[in-house]
Amino acid sequence: MKKLAILGSTGSIGQSTLDVVRAHPDKLKVVGLAAGSNGERLRKQAEAFGATITALASETGSEGLIAVATHPDVDIVICASSGTDALEAVLAAIEAGKTIALANKEVLVMAGALVTAAARARGVAILPVDSEHNAIHQCLHGRRLEEVRRIILTASGGPFREMSASALENVTPEDALRHPTWRMGRKITIDSATLMNKGLEVIEAHWLFHLPGDRIDVVIHPQSIVHSMVELTDGSIIAQLGGADMKLPIQYACSYPDRWEAPVARLDLTAAGRLDFHKPDLDRFPCLRLAYRALESGPSHAVVLNAANEVAVASYLDEKISFVSIPRVIEQTMDAHSTVPAITLEAVREIDRWARHYSQNVARGLELKV
Amino acid sequence: MKKLAILGSTGSIGQSTLDVVRAHPDKLKVVGLAAGSNGERLRKQAEAFGATITALASETGSEGLIAVATHPDVDIVICASSGTDALEAVLAAIEAGKTIALANKEVLVMAGALVTAAARARGVAILPVDSEHNAIHQCLHGRRLEEVRRIILTASGGPFREMSASALENVTPEDALRHPTWRMGRKITIDSATLMNKGLEVIEAHWLFHLPGDRIDVVIHPQSIVHSMVELTDGSIIAQLGGADMKLPIQYACSYPDRWEAPVARLDLTAAGRLDFHKPDLDRFPCLRLAYRALESGPSHAVVLNAANEVAVASYLDEKISFVSIPRVIEQTMDAHSTVPAITLEAVREIDRWARHYSQNVARGLELKV
Repeated sequence: MKKLAILGSTGSIGQSTLDVVRAHPDKLKVVGLAAGSNGERLRKQAEAFGATITALASETGSEGLIAVATHPDVDIVICASSGTDALEAVLAAIEAGKTIALANKEVLVMAGALVTAAARARGVAILPVDSEHNAIHQCLHGRRLEEVRRIILTASGGPFREMSASALENVTPEDALRHPTWRMGRKITIDSATLMNKGLEVIEAHWLFHLPGDRIDVVIHPQSIVHSMVELTDGSIIAQLGGADMKLPIQYACSYPDRWEAPVARLDLTAAGRLDFHKPDLDRFPCLRLAYRALESGPSHAVVLNAANEVAVASYLDEKISFVSIPRVIEQTMDAHSTVPAITLEAVREIDRWARHYSQNVARGLELKV
Repeated sequence: MKKLAILGSTGSIGQSTLDVVRAHPDKLKVVGLAAGSNGERLRKQAEAFGATITALASETGSEGLIAVATHPDVDIVICASSGTDALEAVLAAIEAGKTIALANKEVLVMAGALVTAAARARGVAILPVDSEHNAIHQCLHGRRLEEVRRIILTASGGPFREMSASALENVTPEDALRHPTWRMGRKITIDSATLMNKGLEVIEAHWLFHLPGDRIDVVIHPQSIVHSMVELTDGSIIAQLGGADMKLPIQYACSYPDRWEAPVARLDLTAAGRLDFHKPDLDRFPCLRLAYRALESGPSHAVVLNAANEVAVASYLDEKISFVSIPRVIEQTMDAHSTVPAITLEAVREIDRWARHYSQNVARGLELKV
């Protein structure tokens, strides 16, 4: 029996995690649940799953998350909360020797060096729940890093995959929120439309799989069936395929190194019929290029990229700036940042604050005239 | 340094194996070479690679093959000869503790039970070189059999993939010999056009991976880029992709469990652009159905299937019977066979002789009137 703590249990990934627990009452048990502000849903979940400990971050702050993540009965911490609220809790869970199932990009984008160094020092596994990184983990299973030439992350390409550069000038948040294959929150859906989501995943992949940016490629694959691939030194490519259901990677992270029957629809490739692959267009989707630039420039630049992106996306969702201004806000903020060589958690928070403040001003300068 | 014996060194797979040796002079060394009847080429190869021992089967019979395969310096025997001439040599090599790299389907189709039991008893690995089984081996690497729900062999579908049943009545050997993606010998190219090649691979997969026929599926994939797939218990599918170059699976079998840079062109999925998958049509291509029937009926039926197919394909290549008569010859021969429950090597040879004789008569009855 594996005992879980779920940070962000009331969100989409959190609820899917509880679906997985429901399918395996003999193998998984919920010990702790933590949510941001939806106290009513958290209370119901705790009752339904008999959780020992709960925390509502809006009331307890990060202390509550840490208490849930480090509870002595917990084996695996599912980090499914969005943003960077869970960063301290993840570091505390690693310190306490818990396995981390990571469904949150910001933790590694902002503090990948800190988190992976802590995990290495404590001998703790970080299992990726993002479908792409989970696919890479499955493809790499049983292979050594020396066998790997590069990893290839697939991207759906988002709703504007085939739109011209000039048409992109006028896309509304409403257009952008219609994602072709995955149903997700608003922020991540916009990130998917700009390809920043893939950019953040490139940075995440760097920390998870210890490869430089020039060995992490992105291909557009509109059907989202091949979740990602690994090219090995002999040229052979290993791919992981599956339906677009997050319960599959969540369960993999819970069951690893075992594998269980899953409560998901079976993939029939002959029903899908066809899989397409194209190169991403970095001119129309500069956010991906900016993510590679951040990765090359050093960890502090990824903090700036992430913070400026959050600010720019919020401005876009408020209909204050245009879609094509999102990368402009980020780029101008990155241009204004000077590398901080070795970064602590305090430095991360400080750079994050600076980048949010700076990008807010850049965004204001790019505001649409109504 | 791994030391190789190559059975069938003058054929297509044998020559590709020598290309692989040429690319890795620091890792691979040729000790023994055996060929069927091309003595001149064999002599040149032996000279070029400094082979210690050679055998020309047309002169030495199976004794020569056995001497090459069991030479004390040999680590790996590459079985690349066609037909069943190498059967005794493979069994002798297993007995001598050699690793077997198997590029020959008949060995397992005819004597899978014998060969795999001998390999298990001696603790010898049989590494598949057929691109499909090699792909499955790569996908399974590091996983336990209990994790596997089914394996999915891909098939190019051959040159008549989209041809109507009535048009198939009139296809000539010349049409059939134009294979869309792989360049191979005449017999295997016809097997590819009838889908019998895939049927033989289903039987081979059964012996290599210990799965029943209903857990070995076939999908048509015209681009021959996904070489095969494994569906795991949670519904996740792991696939191996690569170019259509036999040097890749040959080298994998030689380097395993390591992996080396390979002398092959790199696969660019975005250049391929598109991968298609369909269900095979067992009405238009009954040979595949017959192979599943043979697998269900027991090992002696696979011997009959294989022998009758060889006779039928030879008659077709001689323009004596039509393309659609190939499965008829096989089916009528199978109908006339009664199961032999436990089969020895002698029984295999005896059933093989009976089936060749019987199917020869069936084929004569189906001869085209000129």
